[in-house]
Amino acid sequence: MKVVITGGAGFLGQLLIRALCARGRLQDATGAERTIEQIVAIDQSHAARLFVDERVGYVVGDISQSALLMHVLGTDTDSLFHLAAVVSGAAEADFELGMRVNLDGTRALLDTCRTQRRPPMFVFASSVAVFGGELPQVVTDDTAATPQASYGVQKLVGELLVGEYGRKGYVDSRVVRLPTIVVRPGKPNAAASSFASGIIREPLAGEEAVCPVETETPLWLLSPTAAIEALLRAHELPRAQWQAVTGGRALNLPGLTVTVAQMIEALRAVGGDAAVSRIRVAPDPRIKAIVQSWASRFVTTRASQLGFRADPSFDEVVRTYAATHATTHTTIHTTPGTPT
Amino acid sequence: MKVVITGGAGFLGQLLIRALCARGRLQDATGAERTIEQIVAIDQSHAARLFVDERVGYVVGDISQSALLMHVLGTDTDSLFHLAAVVSGAAEADFELGMRVNLDGTRALLDTCRTQRRPPMFVFASSVAVFGGELPQVVTDDTAATPQASYGVQKLVGELLVGEYGRKGYVDSRVVRLPTIVVRPGKPNAAASSFASGIIREPLAGEEAVCPVETETPLWLLSPTAAIEALLRAHELPRAQWQAVTGGRALNLPGLTVTVAQMIEALRAVGGDAAVSRIRVAPDPRIKAIVQSWASRFVTTRASQLGFRADPSFDEVVRTYAATHATTHTTIHTTPGTPT
Repeated sequence: MKVVITGGAGFLGQLLIRALCARGRLQDATGAERTIEQIVAIDQSHAARLFVDERVGYVVGDISQSALLMHVLGTDTDSLFHLAAVVSGAAEADFELGMRVNLDGTRALLDTCRTQRRPPMFVFASSVAVFGGELPQVVTDDTAATPQASYGVQKLVGELLVGEYGRKGYVDSRVVRLPTIVVRPGKPNAAASSFASGIIREPLAGEEAVCPVETETPLWLLSPTAAIEALLRAHELPRAQWQAVTGGRALNLPGLTVTVAQMIEALRAVGGDAAVSRIRVAPDPRIKAIVQSWASRFVTTRASQLGFRADPSFDEVVRTYAATHATTHTTIHTTPGTPT
Repeated sequence: MKVVITGGAGFLGQLLIRALCARGRLQDATGAERTIEQIVAIDQSHAARLFVDERVGYVVGDISQSALLMHVLGTDTDSLFHLAAVVSGAAEADFELGMRVNLDGTRALLDTCRTQRRPPMFVFASSVAVFGGELPQVVTDDTAATPQASYGVQKLVGELLVGEYGRKGYVDSRVVRLPTIVVRPGKPNAAASSFASGIIREPLAGEEAVCPVETETPLWLLSPTAAIEALLRAHELPRAQWQAVTGGRALNLPGLTVTVAQMIEALRAVGGDAAVSRIRVAPDPRIKAIVQSWASRFVTTRASQLGFRADPSFDEVVRTYAATHATTHTTIHTTPGTPT
């Protein structure tokens, strides 16, 4: 089978490609195990070090360009993971860019999918950012999405379009709303949520991190590993089961509700007081406004029915990150009662 | 002031133009009364008999064409009423057409609004069709829109885009969700709801009407007169008040919940048994599926707070229609206790 991944040079894209190559096979919508022959990653630019495998090709380009998409998808694409997006802070700062990539890009992908030999599987990574404004204490599967920022609006429009193309039978649509993904390795990005990884990652690397929101701010989090598992599960669930539970709508994924203060304590458990001392809290009104408009408490009944799972604890998320990305600046602490 | 009306040659568009010309003035977002100097109506085609007034100009064209919109809007448009749409049945039958007019058209209008001297007022006529699927018994202002057909998806995406351009300050956005408008004069159209006018209009004109849904089917209705009043009210409410109540979101308008059986009894009260005998109930699975996916019971708290009102009764709606459009085939009955 041929798999196309937008945003394939990004952090999640690279993790997904590694996971796909390691498995070598993927279940299709009929439940049949199929060998992955080809993976094509599209991205606006490429990271310095990309995962290399004979099955993987990389294409640089803008997903809003139909000609590029027709070239990349051909007519034989079986599965598409649509991860590419202009992130929240950048979409708010550059309206046209956000509209072009997040909205026109999704639309162009969907239209290109209609030219495939068979309707492809279309897994769309949407976001918790579709929720905003006056929200109930706890967001449920039936809570209305009311985004308050460009990124959330564009993701919600994307969800609706992917769902509609699914309803029409042009794609097999699977839309999942990702919590904030923490801990991302590498550099900060223009996402308003970038700090949530930064306040763990930078201190563990011996660097200072700025936290632009108050420490009592709650966030709704998922680890990169759990996010990749969720994308693969969304792909592999039989169509009938997916439809029966979701009705073809976007699925709120499980996650952990963690305050920044609790994140800092998890950092302390792994990196000690020295790591914590590298965090400086300096509220930024622009970032705060976006982050505070996001939902942080969910009951994800449908996702649980479909077997999606959150990380066991945020401490575990930090420990896993530190174990995989430890540097000389980090002394990893093990806490009593935590076998490592 | 200069007012642009999309779908201006259509039934509601013509009623709106008449109303605007009769008033001659319109309140802007600051509450100032302004003289209407120019009205430009855009439509895909023109009715045989258009309302003529020296202030009104008509342009034939496709609202998804930016060049046309730039020509029509110029840079001095103060207000836009966006009524144009490919209706529900047609949008379902011709996916590309619905996407182009209902989605690309709305987007092109919004982008053209950004080139105006001042951000114009943007009144968008959305629809009850954004609700569908498994719905609560009664739809409230907080019920999630979950459209189950192309038209509803395209209207909902339009709502989100209009709201977003409003939030960014590119337009002053006012989105109202119209109930099914009954009684429309003239010919049946490709809307799945077309029969709802047809079963009143045709029998009163001495013609047979086919009802494609069971008589116990409930509908959520508003008269054309009340719809025009609602569009004007949406325009004239001060921005601060609109924002305080709606939060910039789409507003469910008030309406009447009426079953087809009750509609038929209202017809009997006005047109007698002879009129009712001209209705033939012949359920059509395609129409039924669309109509049954619509919501029919609402509590419209926000709209009431803003002074929007439904018609007093459906009998009154039919009487008003018959009085305005009576033909030789109609003997208008007056019911006891109903002064006429």
